[in-house]
Amino acid sequence: MSPSDLVIRAPYVVTCDDAMTVIENGAVAARDGRIVAVGPAAAIPIVGAELIEAKGRILMPGLINMHCHAGDSLFRGLVENLPLEPWLQTVWKAERAILRPTTCRLGAELGLAELLLSGVTTVMDMFWFPEETVRAAKALGIRVATGGIFFDPPGMDGHLADRRLADATAFFDAVEDEPLIFAGCLPHGTYTVSPQHLQNAARLSRSRGGFWCTHAAETAAEQATIIERYGRRVITHLAELDLLGPDVVLAHCVHLDTAEIDLLAASGTHVVHNPMSNLKLASGFAPVPALLAAGVNVTLGTDGAISGNDLDMWLAIRLAATLHKAATGNAAAVTTAEALAMATRNGARALNAADRLGSIEPGKAADFILVDIGRPHAAPLFDPVTHLVYSAGRGDVTDVFVGGRRVVEAGRLLTADVGALVAAADALRPAIAASVV
Amino acid sequence: MSPSDLVIRAPYVVTCDDAMTVIENGAVAARDGRIVAVGPAAAIPIVGAELIEAKGRILMPGLINMHCHAGDSLFRGLVENLPLEPWLQTVWKAERAILRPTTCRLGAELGLAELLLSGVTTVMDMFWFPEETVRAAKALGIRVATGGIFFDPPGMDGHLADRRLADATAFFDAVEDEPLIFAGCLPHGTYTVSPQHLQNAARLSRSRGGFWCTHAAETAAEQATIIERYGRRVITHLAELDLLGPDVVLAHCVHLDTAEIDLLAASGTHVVHNPMSNLKLASGFAPVPALLAAGVNVTLGTDGAISGNDLDMWLAIRLAATLHKAATGNAAAVTTAEALAMATRNGARALNAADRLGSIEPGKAADFILVDIGRPHAAPLFDPVTHLVYSAGRGDVTDVFVGGRRVVEAGRLLTADVGALVAAADALRPAIAASVV
Ligand SMILES: [Zn+2]
Ligand SMILES: [Zn+2]
Repeated sequence: MSPSDLVIRAPYVVTCDDAMTVIENGAVAARDGRIVAVGPAAAIPIVGAELIEAKGRILMPGLINMHCHAGDSLFRGLVENLPLEPWLQTVWKAERAILRPTTCRLGAELGLAELLLSGVTTVMDMFWFPEETVRAAKALGIRVATGGIFFDPPGMDGHLADRRLADATAFFDAVEDEPLIFAGCLPHGTYTVSPQHLQNAARLSRSRGGFWCTHAAETAAEQATIIERYGRRVITHLAELDLLGPDVVLAHCVHLDTAEIDLLAASGTHVVHNPMSNLKLASGFAPVPALLAAGVNVTLGTDGAISGNDLDMWLAIRLAATLHKAATGNAAAVTTAEALAMATRNGARALNAADRLGSIEPGKAADFILVDIGRPHAAPLFDPVTHLVYSAGRGDVTDVFVGGRRVVEAGRLLTADVGALVAAADALRPAIAASVV
Repeated sequence: MSPSDLVIRAPYVVTCDDAMTVIENGAVAARDGRIVAVGPAAAIPIVGAELIEAKGRILMPGLINMHCHAGDSLFRGLVENLPLEPWLQTVWKAERAILRPTTCRLGAELGLAELLLSGVTTVMDMFWFPEETVRAAKALGIRVATGGIFFDPPGMDGHLADRRLADATAFFDAVEDEPLIFAGCLPHGTYTVSPQHLQNAARLSRSRGGFWCTHAAETAAEQATIIERYGRRVITHLAELDLLGPDVVLAHCVHLDTAEIDLLAASGTHVVHNPMSNLKLASGFAPVPALLAAGVNVTLGTDGAISGNDLDMWLAIRLAATLHKAATGNAAAVTTAEALAMATRNGARALNAADRLGSIEPGKAADFILVDIGRPHAAPLFDPVTHLVYSAGRGDVTDVFVGGRRVVEAGRLLTADVGALVAAADALRPAIAASVV
C-alpha cells in the first residue's frame, strides 16, 4: 500500500459497494485524489497523512445527481399555483428574456453551490450555454456531466437548430482535458427534436465515447404526441432509431408499458428517477419497482429548481424509498440499499464510471462526504443505511471532498462566496419578475 | 397599544392569517408571551423592548404537528425492508419489552427536542404514559395536546382496558393548570377499541371540554375489518356512535368514500394528513383535494418515527403540496397557501385554539420561528410562502419562541442537553435490539 496524504476516521463508513458494506469505526485513506485503503480504523496507517477524526458522523460517497438544470435555479418559485401548461409558458417566457452566458454562469454557480452543500459531488446537467456550467463547475470544484443541447425550436439561448451539432462538437473539443467534466450530447426530448437530429447527436457522442441523455416518457401527453407523430411509443421510437444502450441516460420514464421496460432492460439503458419533479408537475409515479425487477439501472435526480424548487438529493432518496410503497401497496417495495445505490453507485454506472466513482473502494476517486449523526433525528441509530435513507437530510452534511479536495467544511462552501451568489441572484429578481408581467 | 418586552424585525413576516398576509420589512411585538402588534417595522415602537434583528430570515408562526407519537422515536429505524404485517409485529414486540415511564420520558424528550429544533411549537401526541410526555413538554417548553390512550388489548404500558377511563380522568385532573398542555382522550382506533369504550372516552373529553382523537381509515384493511365487524365503513361507524364533530381529530383518513367525506365536512370534524407515514407504510394517498373541496379542516402531522423515521413537518408540508398533484394529475391541486395553512392555522382550529395559536396576529401567543433565507436553495426569493412550502427545510430553522420564550437559538436547543438525549437513546439501543431477536 502506498502512503496516503489524507486519512478520515468515522464511527461508520457506508461504502456503497456492491454489498452495501458498512464498516464500524472505519477509516479511509486517500492519496493524490484517489482512495488507497478502506477498512477498520485500526488497520489504516496514518503516518505522514492529514488525519480527520470525523466523530459523530457517517463517511459515505458523494451523491450523484443524474438529472439537473442548475441554471434554472434563477427561476426558482417564480410562478406557482397554476396548471402545468400556463405555468410552463410563463417559465419559458422568463428563460427567453433572461438567459445569456453571464446569467447562465450565475445560475449554474448558484445551483452547483446548493448541490455541493448538500453532498452532491457529481451532477449531470442539461442547460443552455453548457460551457458556462463547465466554468462554474471548475470554479466550485464539482464533477459535471454536460454537453450541447439539441432542440429544434429556437432555443432559450437564441440559437437555431442548424448550429446545435457544431456547438456540441466544439464542446467536446473544449473540455477534452478537463478532469472534472464528463462530456456528452443532451437532446431535449423526442417531441422537440427530430429523429435526424437525435441521431446526429448520438453519432457525435458515440464517436467521442460520451453519453447521450434526453427526457423520455415524462408525461402522458408526451407519449400521446409521439404515438400520433410516429405511430409508436417513446421508448420504442428510441429503439427503432438505435438510441438505446449503455451510453444512454433517459430522464423520467414515468409512463412506460411493459414492452418499453423490456427494451430498456435488454439494451442496458439507464433511467433517472426524479420523484419530486414528477410529483410537483403532476407527471405521475414512475414504475420504479418494475424497472428494478427488470434489471434496469435506475439512478436518481432532482430535475431543475423550476420543477422541484430545490436540488435536494436527500429528498429524492427518501421519496425513491417511500413513494413506490404507496403507489404499489407493498411496504417492502424499494429497499433502503436499493434507494441509496440509486443515489451513488448506480449513477456512476450510468456515467460509465463505475470503476472510478460511486462507492468508497480502493482505486476510486476520493469523492466522499461526512453526515452528522449527532442530532435528535439520528438517534438511536440501528443501521446507518436506514438512517441515510429515511432520516438524514441536506442539513446534516458537514464536509464534502471531491477528488480528495475539501470543498465544503463544517457546512461552509470553501470554493465560492455563497452570500455573494445569493445576493447576485436576488439582484436579478426584479428583471426576472418583470419579464413575465 | 401596551408597551412590548420583545420586538423581532425580519425582511418577511409570513403571518399565516386568514389572507396569508406577508409583510415585507415587518416586525412583531410581544408582551408577557402574547403578540401585541404586527406590522411594517417602521410602525412598531421598540422602546423598552428587547430587539431582535432577524436579518436574512423569515418570521412565521411555529408549526403545529397534529399527529405524533414522540416516544416511538426510541424505535426509529429498528427494522426495515419488511412487508407491513411482520414489520408491525416486530415493532410491537420491542415496544412491549422496552416501554416504562422512564423510557417513555426519554423517548418523549428525544422526539420533542427534534420537533422544537425543526420549528414545531405545538404537537398532538398519542403515547403510553402521557404524563411522561407532559413532564418532557414542560421541561423542553413546547405545547403538547395529549391525554389517556384507550386500547382494548393489553397495552404496551402493561395496563388493561378496564383502567383506561380512570387513567384518562386522572390525566385531565393532573394537567388542569398546565399552560402548555391541551388535554383530551386518544382512543387508538375503531378496530382496537369497542364502541362502548370509544364513547366512554368521548363522554369524558366532552365533559372536560377536551379534544377526542383517534386513528381512522388509515388502511384498506382497517376499512374491511370495520365493515365486517359492524356492517358499515369507519367514518359512518363513528357518525353512528356520535363520535364526529368539531372536538374530533381523525388521523390519516386515507381510505374514504364520498359519503364519508360529506360526513366529515357536515360535522366539522378535523382531519390530520400524514403523508410520509402513508407513503412508507404503503397506506396510500389521502384524498386531500376532495377533503379541501368539501370544506373539511385538513391539518398536518408526521406520525411517529417508526412510521416515517423522523418528525419532519417541512417534509409533510412539501408532500402535502406536491403528492396530490401527481395523485390527481392536476398540477394546481393544493396551493402553497393551503399547504402552509395546514401546518399552522388549521392545526390551531383543530385544537379549538384558533383565537390563541396558528398565526401571527395581535392577541395570539408569541409562538413563532425564524427561517434562514441566506442559503442557495432560498435564492432568488420571489414569494416567501412559495419558498416555505417548496424549498425550505428543517435545517433552515434558526430560532424558536414558545409563548415569547426563546427555546431554540441559532439552531441550538436551550431547554435540554441534546447530546445527552442522543447518548441516552443510543445507550438503550442494545436492549431494544435484543428485544426483537
Ligand atoms: Zn429535466
Ligand atoms: Zn399514528
